[in-house]
Amino acid sequence: MTKRNLFDNILKKESFLCVGLDSDIQKIPQHLLLEEDPVFAFNQAIIDATQFYCIAYKLNLAFYESLGIKGQIALGKTVAYIRRKYPDQFIIADAKRGDIGNTSEMYARAVFESAGFDSITVAPYMGEDSVKPFLVYPGKWVILLALTSNKGAQDFQFMTDVNGERLFEKVLKRSQRWATNEQIMFVVGATHGKMLEDVRKIVPRHFLLVPGVGAQGGSLEEVARYGLNSQCGLIVNSSRQIIYADSTEQFAESARQEARKLQLEMSKYLKWITNAK
Amino acid sequence: MTKRNLFDNILKKESFLCVGLDSDIQKIPQHLLLEEDPVFAFNQAIIDATQFYCIAYKLNLAFYESLGIKGQIALGKTVAYIRRKYPDQFIIADAKRGDIGNTSEMYARAVFESAGFDSITVAPYMGEDSVKPFLVYPGKWVILLALTSNKGAQDFQFMTDVNGERLFEKVLKRSQRWATNEQIMFVVGATHGKMLEDVRKIVPRHFLLVPGVGAQGGSLEEVARYGLNSQCGLIVNSSRQIIYADSTEQFAESARQEARKLQLEMSKYLKWITNAK
Repeated sequence: MTKRNLFDNILKKESFLCVGLDSDIQKIPQHLLLEEDPVFAFNQAIIDATQFYCIAYKLNLAFYESLGIKGQIALGKTVAYIRRKYPDQFIIADAKRGDIGNTSEMYARAVFESAGFDSITVAPYMGEDSVKPFLVYPGKWVILLALTSNKGAQDFQFMTDVNGERLFEKVLKRSQRWATNEQIMFVVGATHGKMLEDVRKIVPRHFLLVPGVGAQGGSLEEVARYGLNSQCGLIVNSSRQIIYADSTEQFAESARQEARKLQLEMSKYLKWITNAK
Repeated sequence: MTKRNLFDNILKKESFLCVGLDSDIQKIPQHLLLEEDPVFAFNQAIIDATQFYCIAYKLNLAFYESLGIKGQIALGKTVAYIRRKYPDQFIIADAKRGDIGNTSEMYARAVFESAGFDSITVAPYMGEDSVKPFLVYPGKWVILLALTSNKGAQDFQFMTDVNGERLFEKVLKRSQRWATNEQIMFVVGATHGKMLEDVRKIVPRHFLLVPGVGAQGGSLEEVARYGLNSQCGLIVNSSRQIIYADSTEQFAESARQEARKLQLEMSKYLKWITNAK
C-alpha cells in the first residue's frame, strides 16, 4: 500500500483510527469460549463491527504466540479475513522485531510472505542491518520504534549526547538514510503528546503510528494538534478501549460505538487539514 | 536453572558452547526433505551429535516463524526433545522481544509456559517495564541485548552521553536495578573481543551470551581472554559453523566434529580459571 492509498482511505473514512487486536483469550466474552476458535470468532466480530470507522488493524503478535499453535492459526485466519473482506485496510504486525541480517530476513519472510501483513513494527537497537531486510518488499512498510508510550521509554530513549541529541531523535534521523517516507513510519506514543512537535521537526512528512490513546492515557486532541501533517501522517491506535468495551454478548456493538466515537473526533481534526487546502 | 547449575554443567562438559539451531529449511541437507518434519529431523540429528560437547541450545525463533504453523510445531518438538533427553541443557529462545508490560507478559507466557524455554533474549529499547514481565518466572532467565555482534551495533549502541557513558554501558548498569545476576545475562558479540574488558568492569559476575564466533568473524580466544570470570560467565554460541558444516548425509557427524573442536579449545581456556583456584 502506498502513502497516497493510505491517505485516500483516511479521507474516505474520515478516520485515522487503527483498531488493535490485542485479543486475549482470558479477556474475551465468556460465551465465545464455546466457539471452535474463540479468538478468531472474537476478531471477526470486532472487525465486522469496526471496519467502517477505521483504516487499519494492528495484530499484537505476543497475544497470538502466547496460545502456541492455536494462536498462530487464529492469527493467520484473521489476516486472511481482513485481506479478503476489507482489502483497503492496512494490516500491521506489531512484533517489535529486529535481529542480525540473516535473522531479520527470516522475520520478514514470516510476516510479509507467510502471514501477509502490510507492515511490521521493528526495534532499532541493532541498527541498520537489522532493519534493512524488511525494506526490500515493494509496498510493505517498516514501522520503527522511536518514542514508545510506556514508562520505560524514559530509561534509554531520552539519553542525550554531547550535541543535545536524544536517542529517539538519532533513530528518526539515522533511519532516513535507510529508507524513504514511502517505506518507513515511526512509532511515537500518544503519552508524549507535545513531544510530537519535536518529532515533526525531524520527520515532517512521515506517517507515525501512535499507540497509547485510551487505556494508556494519551490525549487524541494533543496528538492531532502536534502530529497532523498535510497528508494526515497519523495512524492512531486504540486497543483495549475498543475491543474490551464490553464483555457481554453485545461486545461487538459496544466496540462499534467506541470506534465510532473516536472516528467522529478524528473527522473533526481532519477538517483542520482539509479546510487548509 | 541456577547460575551454579550452569557452572557445574560447564565444568562437567569442559565446555561453554551453545549450539545455535538456526535451522533453515533451504539450507538443511536435501535428503531430509523427504522426512515428515524435515526441520525437526535435522535438529534431532544435530542435537544427538553435539550434546556431549555443549551446555546449551539456542533456537532462533525467526527461522521457525518463517515456516508458519509447521515451524511452530518443529520448534515445540525440538524444545520438548531436548528437555526430555538432555535435561541438563540450557535452552535459549533467541527472540529479541520487548514491548509494553501487558504485551511482554504475553511473550513471557509464550516462551516460558507454552514452549518451555529456560531463557529469552530481550531488546532493551523500551526500558524497565518491557523487561520486568520476563523476570517473574523462578529459575528462568532474561538475556538482555547490550552490545550486539552485527555491523549495525555501531548505529546506536555506542552513542555517548555527556559523561562519556555509552548506550550499551547504560543498558548494563541500569538493568542491574531490575534483576540480580541470577536472573539476567547479557548479549555481547564476539566481534567486539577486547570490548569485553569494558563490559566486565560493569558486570564482573554476570553470565554473557556471546554470539558471533565463526561465520561472523569473532575470535574465541579473545572472548575467553577478556570475558571469562571465576564461574566461567560465558556461553559462546556457534550456529552456522556447526550446523551447516556439511550438507551431505554425514552432516551430523560433521557437526559433531565442529562442536568437538570448539569444546577442545574451550577446555583449554577453562583451565585458566580452574587452575587459578
